[in-house]
Amino acid sequence: MRIKAVISYDGTNFAGYQVQPNKRTVQLELERVLMKIHKGEAIKVVASGRTDARVHATGQVIHFDTPLNISVEAWQKALNVQLPDDIRVRDVQLVTDDFHARYGAVGKRYRYIWSLERIQSPFRRHYAVFMKGQQPDVKRMKQATHAFLGEHDFSAFCAANTSVVDKVRTIHSLRLEQHPNELHLIIEGNGFLYNMVRIIAGTLWDVGMKKIAVAQVPAILASQSRDEAGKTAPPQGLYLEEVWYA
Amino acid sequence: MRIKAVISYDGTNFAGYQVQPNKRTVQLELERVLMKIHKGEAIKVVASGRTDARVHATGQVIHFDTPLNISVEAWQKALNVQLPDDIRVRDVQLVTDDFHARYGAVGKRYRYIWSLERIQSPFRRHYAVFMKGQQPDVKRMKQATHAFLGEHDFSAFCAANTSVVDKVRTIHSLRLEQHPNELHLIIEGNGFLYNMVRIIAGTLWDVGMKKIAVAQVPAILASQSRDEAGKTAPPQGLYLEEVWYA
Repeated sequence: MRIKAVISYDGTNFAGYQVQPNKRTVQLELERVLMKIHKGEAIKVVASGRTDARVHATGQVIHFDTPLNISVEAWQKALNVQLPDDIRVRDVQLVTDDFHARYGAVGKRYRYIWSLERIQSPFRRHYAVFMKGQQPDVKRMKQATHAFLGEHDFSAFCAANTSVVDKVRTIHSLRLEQHPNELHLIIEGNGFLYNMVRIIAGTLWDVGMKKIAVAQVPAILASQSRDEAGKTAPPQGLYLEEVWYA
Repeated sequence: MRIKAVISYDGTNFAGYQVQPNKRTVQLELERVLMKIHKGEAIKVVASGRTDARVHATGQVIHFDTPLNISVEAWQKALNVQLPDDIRVRDVQLVTDDFHARYGAVGKRYRYIWSLERIQSPFRRHYAVFMKGQQPDVKRMKQATHAFLGEHDFSAFCAANTSVVDKVRTIHSLRLEQHPNELHLIIEGNGFLYNMVRIIAGTLWDVGMKKIAVAQVPAILASQSRDEAGKTAPPQGLYLEEVWYA
């Protein structure tokens, strides 16, 4: 039987999603608990994609195969009882064997949160990126978002050390939301390259700080050169919110 | 010169406010940084009151004496640069020598936060108390709040192991606020006994769960017996929000 689950995790104390030697990762915790439930049998967990150290998820999707005949309610309970409390299973579904958390994903939504407070809140230090009281020009940032919409080669917005060849992706929507003392970037697309959201966030911030002109953004995209874009924004501001399947 | 500061801290990784041997406490971190600033001289920090392990503060007040002639802006900067990021100095004022953070306090406001979510959010696990999806009858809780208003002997709502003799305190206001998936208790008074807010919270929760009748609450107060009140609610839901001075 194939099980699909929607999970959330606080990325603060993880070295990211994917298993790495001698590191605490989300996948490691999931597979550790599944091995227990399967009395020592190793169960491989597949996620929609990896997330980096300190990056959060409120709607990561995973799947795994199991010989156990357990109701979805019992699965959710069994997993949440045994998982550490920085990972929670929000939903469990029984799916057909052709469901694949990674290859079947047709869209994702991410959120990036900047804290605009003058003094950093101890309560947001792991959950938003503190910008030392700087106040960006949000109107400029909103103007710059238009350049990203639609299908583009996002080579300029992808970490240089990636092995992915096809860097064409489609951004369906990209909006900025102003919250008390915070600015949120919400971005939806059919797929995202390594560090793509964080480089877009870093570039938009530079536009807001008038280090990059609004009109320069299409040129940065067209350059297909990572050096032209802004810095990769820090991980703790990033949330994987939702993954869609056809 | 006497310096007053308003500080906030995330209590998660502290063994409480007050210095204890071999424990990481808020006072320890403050005094460590002040000793550095004073080139090795020990500076004693006085707070409005102690807070327990895992209890948070958004408006704790402290004072200390210093021979250094530094502007309040420079004090705030110097402290925030050197303090760990789970403590932040929100404000600094120069005060007269008769200001005393503890003895001068004439009122305090605390907040207690219950999480009513069905599945615990990994992001709120240190910042609200997860009630396993239980939904209290908030109307009953609101009715029960009236019993606490005004001047009472709060012996029934004080940890048994306290050395304080006079247990008469005045509660100025006590209200419940409903937030998405959360219930907040906000309580103001002229002073609070050890664990008083957490025992009031635990008792109100039991009223909401129909384990204690609304009409029983005045009788619990009158009993002056700790055994009659509800359990001490867990620390991570509690925030010291503000301290007033005459």
